[in-house]
Amino acid sequence: MALDPQLAATLSRVTTATLTTLLLKKGLRNVWMRGTRPLDPGQPRLVGSAFTLRFVPAREDLATPESWSKPISTRAAIEAMPEGCIAVVDAMGITDAGIFGDILCARMQKRGVAALVTDGALRDVAGVRATGLPVWCQGVAAPPSVAGLTFVNWGEPIGCGGVAVFPDDIVVADDDGAVLIPQALVGEIAAAAPEQERIEAWIMGEIDKGAALPGLYPPNAENKARYEAAKGGKS
Amino acid sequence: MALDPQLAATLSRVTTATLTTLLLKKGLRNVWMRGTRPLDPGQPRLVGSAFTLRFVPAREDLATPESWSKPISTRAAIEAMPEGCIAVVDAMGITDAGIFGDILCARMQKRGVAALVTDGALRDVAGVRATGLPVWCQGVAAPPSVAGLTFVNWGEPIGCGGVAVFPDDIVVADDDGAVLIPQALVGEIAAAAPEQERIEAWIMGEIDKGAALPGLYPPNAENKARYEAAKGGKS
Amino acid sequence: MALDPQLAATLSRVTTATLTTLLLKKGLRNVWMRGTRPLDPGQPRLVGSAFTLRFVPAREDLATPESWSKPISTRAAIEAMPEGCIAVVDAMGITDAGIFGDILCARMQKRGVAALVTDGALRDVAGVRATGLPVWCQGVAAPPSVAGLTFVNWGEPIGCGGVAVFPDDIVVADDDGAVLIPQALVGEIAAAAPEQERIEAWIMGEIDKGAALPGLYPPNAENKARYEAAKGGKS
Amino acid sequence: MALDPQLAATLSRVTTATLTTLLLKKGLRNVWMRGTRPLDPGQPRLVGSAFTLRFVPAREDLATPESWSKPISTRAAIEAMPEGCIAVVDAMGITDAGIFGDILCARMQKRGVAALVTDGALRDVAGVRATGLPVWCQGVAAPPSVAGLTFVNWGEPIGCGGVAVFPDDIVVADDDGAVLIPQALVGEIAAAAPEQERIEAWIMGEIDKGAALPGLYPPNAENKARYEAAKGGKS
Amino acid sequence: MALDPQLAATLSRVTTATLTTLLLKKGLRNVWMRGTRPLDPGQPRLVGSAFTLRFVPAREDLATPESWSKPISTRAAIEAMPEGCIAVVDAMGITDAGIFGDILCARMQKRGVAALVTDGALRDVAGVRATGLPVWCQGVAAPPSVAGLTFVNWGEPIGCGGVAVFPDDIVVADDDGAVLIPQALVGEIAAAAPEQERIEAWIMGEIDKGAALPGLYPPNAENKARYEAAKGGKS
Amino acid sequence: MALDPQLAATLSRVTTATLTTLLLKKGLRNVWMRGTRPLDPGQPRLVGSAFTLRFVPAREDLATPESWSKPISTRAAIEAMPEGCIAVVDAMGITDAGIFGDILCARMQKRGVAALVTDGALRDVAGVRATGLPVWCQGVAAPPSVAGLTFVNWGEPIGCGGVAVFPDDIVVADDDGAVLIPQALVGEIAAAAPEQERIEAWIMGEIDKGAALPGLYPPNAENKARYEAAKGGKS
Repeated sequence: MALDPQLAATLSRVTTATLTTLLLKKGLRNVWMRGTRPLDPGQPRLVGSAFTLRFVPAREDLATPESWSKPISTRAAIEAMPEGCIAVVDAMGITDAGIFGDILCARMQKRGVAALVTDGALRDVAGVRATGLPVWCQGVAAPPSVAGLTFVNWGEPIGCGGVAVFPDDIVVADDDGAVLIPQALVGEIAAAAPEQERIEAWIMGEIDKGAALPGLYPPNAENKARYEAAKGGKS
Repeated sequence: MALDPQLAATLSRVTTATLTTLLLKKGLRNVWMRGTRPLDPGQPRLVGSAFTLRFVPAREDLATPESWSKPISTRAAIEAMPEGCIAVVDAMGITDAGIFGDILCARMQKRGVAALVTDGALRDVAGVRATGLPVWCQGVAAPPSVAGLTFVNWGEPIGCGGVAVFPDDIVVADDDGAVLIPQALVGEIAAAAPEQERIEAWIMGEIDKGAALPGLYPPNAENKARYEAAKGGKS
Repeated sequence: MALDPQLAATLSRVTTATLTTLLLKKGLRNVWMRGTRPLDPGQPRLVGSAFTLRFVPAREDLATPESWSKPISTRAAIEAMPEGCIAVVDAMGITDAGIFGDILCARMQKRGVAALVTDGALRDVAGVRATGLPVWCQGVAAPPSVAGLTFVNWGEPIGCGGVAVFPDDIVVADDDGAVLIPQALVGEIAAAAPEQERIEAWIMGEIDKGAALPGLYPPNAENKARYEAAKGGKS
Repeated sequence: MALDPQLAATLSRVTTATLTTLLLKKGLRNVWMRGTRPLDPGQPRLVGSAFTLRFVPAREDLATPESWSKPISTRAAIEAMPEGCIAVVDAMGITDAGIFGDILCARMQKRGVAALVTDGALRDVAGVRATGLPVWCQGVAAPPSVAGLTFVNWGEPIGCGGVAVFPDDIVVADDDGAVLIPQALVGEIAAAAPEQERIEAWIMGEIDKGAALPGLYPPNAENKARYEAAKGGKS
Repeated sequence: MALDPQLAATLSRVTTATLTTLLLKKGLRNVWMRGTRPLDPGQPRLVGSAFTLRFVPAREDLATPESWSKPISTRAAIEAMPEGCIAVVDAMGITDAGIFGDILCARMQKRGVAALVTDGALRDVAGVRATGLPVWCQGVAAPPSVAGLTFVNWGEPIGCGGVAVFPDDIVVADDDGAVLIPQALVGEIAAAAPEQERIEAWIMGEIDKGAALPGLYPPNAENKARYEAAKGGKS
Repeated sequence: MALDPQLAATLSRVTTATLTTLLLKKGLRNVWMRGTRPLDPGQPRLVGSAFTLRFVPAREDLATPESWSKPISTRAAIEAMPEGCIAVVDAMGITDAGIFGDILCARMQKRGVAALVTDGALRDVAGVRATGLPVWCQGVAAPPSVAGLTFVNWGEPIGCGGVAVFPDDIVVADDDGAVLIPQALVGEIAAAAPEQERIEAWIMGEIDKGAALPGLYPPNAENKARYEAAKGGKS
């Protein structure tokens, strides 16, 4: 299911740090996918619906080069990815085999996939960088996926970096890694986020003027009033 | 799919140590489920078809006591287990929440489930022991499953202890833990196993008489001939 | 602060499994101290107020046999332990040095300490067993504490097995390990626990009669009514 | 306690590699804080007295956004930091929550804190970089501290990266990470360090001329004499 | 090199806990082999010279059942073991393959090997127990060694459980695991150990009479004098 | 043994990703050395025969600055390295001590060593970078090797990053890390590699034109024919 473009635009201006604070206030402490680091520093923030892929451990009779031609394969999964989605791959945190290399990433890029997020590793990293597909992953490894992983399906609930990801949940990824927003909460979070960013920007301004932290962050009644006044003045 | 009773009877007389040697000779090195230790020492060897269950990490909006009443729940999964199966549970190696406690194990025992195998933990271990259900697991933890895990489905391919398990693969569990035999190989393995056990028993006899290892284990041509002669003599 | 004896008596009849379920319903998912296993199977359930001890890593200039004679030492800490407390020791999960051996445990036993709980290891385990002090720990290691640990203080907030423990929080330990109840919640939990144990016992009876799980555990309206009726009949 | 400026100046010209060698010769093998990597490559070497902060694991009733306004909070700790200190934060090696983000780091920078060292993670890393505060840490994570940590105090002995750090110990951090010098040893180490750097520079010159390692590094009597002669010639 | 029988007899009456304390006083903090747990509780303390074996990771072209017949094999190593030695096996801490099973252990038992110590796992544990060979190991695993390990040699320096072991170093193993005594120190340690055990026994007696710890353990001048007097009285 | 220059030239044009795929087709799944990351991004691919070095854990009586002057030392090992070799160092994955610093790396560079590969850490990383020696390692640590490691020998079989390395095996290292080619297979692999690279380049061209993955990668009969035709046309 495609993500509403206006929600996506709003979320693309909110840091994952702010999103995790808002989600914690809703009772969700476990939404940040461990090990999802940007392959290249400075990748822009990306937002999309999750398209999930799932691996189980390798078994020599199943995880073979021949398996790449089967109807259920990573190749078929990629052809099923809708434009603008974020592919989220459960590699069980295994980092000694690369889930994808340059060819698969090039095809994802061609299909308009927004980003690839995994708790596993990529291979042929020089080639992957050349495709321009934005990637968040735990590392780099030369061996093919079948050296450590058996692909089983797409479109299922998965774990990625210790976080439960269901198809069509929302993923936001930036310099701090990738964060999950449950589909049911995305409207609420997107509504609250811009104000949170605004007040934090005002606080940074106060810090810059030499203000001390207690009473400022989080703001007490007095500072909330000052912020509201300043906001009024700005608008 | 029920396991052929004769195959099951044959396999129940073969150690998992011997089975892993035979599987390695077929090219399968990764069939032993890490962390699957017998809950009680001296549990008899058990054999059955795998009935798989799958968890993903906990999410506070999903992993709730209320989830226990949903149509897709561990409760529903247990009611779907056929008699004689071995339930194999993918807990992603998480050992700080218990997948099942005494009540669920008691029901499994009532339904004739042969054994429970998991890379996770059990809870209320005193109660579980009292049910008499044979369990292979990685540990014991007081918290309920929803403290760390979200149940997602049964009857799917899973990973358990770093091993790929597909529904209806064969599982054998003894003092050394639980081992997977791919369904396609079970006939071949069951055919070869008794002879392997026989020759190892003969070798143990030779060791007992003071024989040295080189040439004996594995046997060279001379010792193979001696074994064949001894076997002939016995039969 | 001593724990109210009636609360203690109530809690001593409740499994840690049930306590963690009740605490999760209050929003606390992280109360089970990882790695706290009973040194001997079959130790009875114990309840007490937490008396905390804290180690930091070893430093060769500080963690010396001479440090054992200092005013701030594990020896002094033991002499400060009140009767009936449970000593909870933050060893940072380090398991290659033993925090205490037979002599310190013998003194704790003499002083009426109810139990020792740690995410670290004990040493001279044969001697510790002989003292009769009930111990929950992560393992056994021959080296003295100073081989890996520097003792710093008692009576401070600590982490033990990934759980925050404050002085005078309540600790309950049984076959499933040790669980923390925040002091502010102990009354509420102790009030709810016996009923939870009663209904689970009734459910076990139903399982024994062959009832299926869905609708029974947790009970739906119909089964709740049946339980209430049964309870009425019993009383 | 402020570090003597001349000692600081001397130490700022010595690599942490050389400092650990000198400390090992004094019997201290465990002084390098594991996981303390420069947030940005090329940060200059920094020296300061340790100002310690301590976290324990998160507990949902304690680790809340409300806790940020308490008298004992990370905010209050920052206001207590003296100019020129190095803040050393015990995050128990937890890397899935960020101890501080841009606002707290901006305030530290304003207060003249020399550097932030932790075995945990930072959050809002783009914002943190913008503050200009030099940081050594184990990684980056979007979630707020309360998602995984409860702050308990400042000015206490802590562990950081497996090293015991006491308030007012000296910390030196460079490309190789952060190293602890016990306060009692800092004079002795600072006295020996420049000579060690000098002889290593001379050895590098010999290597450059094609000399072999045995007898040169460490230098035997002949090479020591040659070095002394060269040094004499230079001065 | 065979261990002097009188030294062996002395050491067999000293706990590994006491030995590690004495070695720490000589500056050796790292002598306890992590993960070396007695296979069966209650195994008597054993003492012997180390006979080392070394594995590297498995490689499919080398770690084959055929390799068991090579001149350099675990079989040949066992035939080279002298009576009374303790075999110490470097399995690099790998616990998902068993280094030895019942047949190899039976042969070691026949040859008079005192014990087997490893940071790896045993396989066919029921069979191994039946041989009567005392074993200290990190676990149990069904797969054969070649599933995870390639044997390379015997009689070389190794690491075992994070400890450097050289051929002919002394090993003592009891309920607390296995401890290394460098060959050069064994005389000194054996000379000091009985007195250390005697004073600790006297301290235990004092504890039993109700004495407090400070000043007693370690004893201050007054208590040392009392101990000396008591010792005099006894002899 | 020096590597044939033509083989080396061929291999230097093949990615380690492609090499691991070819080795997997020969049955070798475990050839990629975990943790061997390029110290600097963009290091060119390097090929050489393995020259092995082996450490065991530190022991305070052996791992001393004095040991650096012994006949068997890292210094002597470096002087034994032939020009063009790749030094592969088994540090048992220990990353809290640096195996080598600037002086040893400078000498290796002088001797014409092609590269240094280790599963351990380097120290004085700024100095190491200045030497120009290409390094693949798991990290950076200030402490000297003797803080955590005892050097034992060179020219022996070792494990590095979970891979068995024998002297004179071939090592290829690039952006994806370092890969082992058994000496016996190097001719075969070098013969097959260029064609594999050619067909993958053709596939990338097809992807660029918008082709879908199924049937293309790996190519089915039709696409193989198209590739052969294209290849014919090119030549």
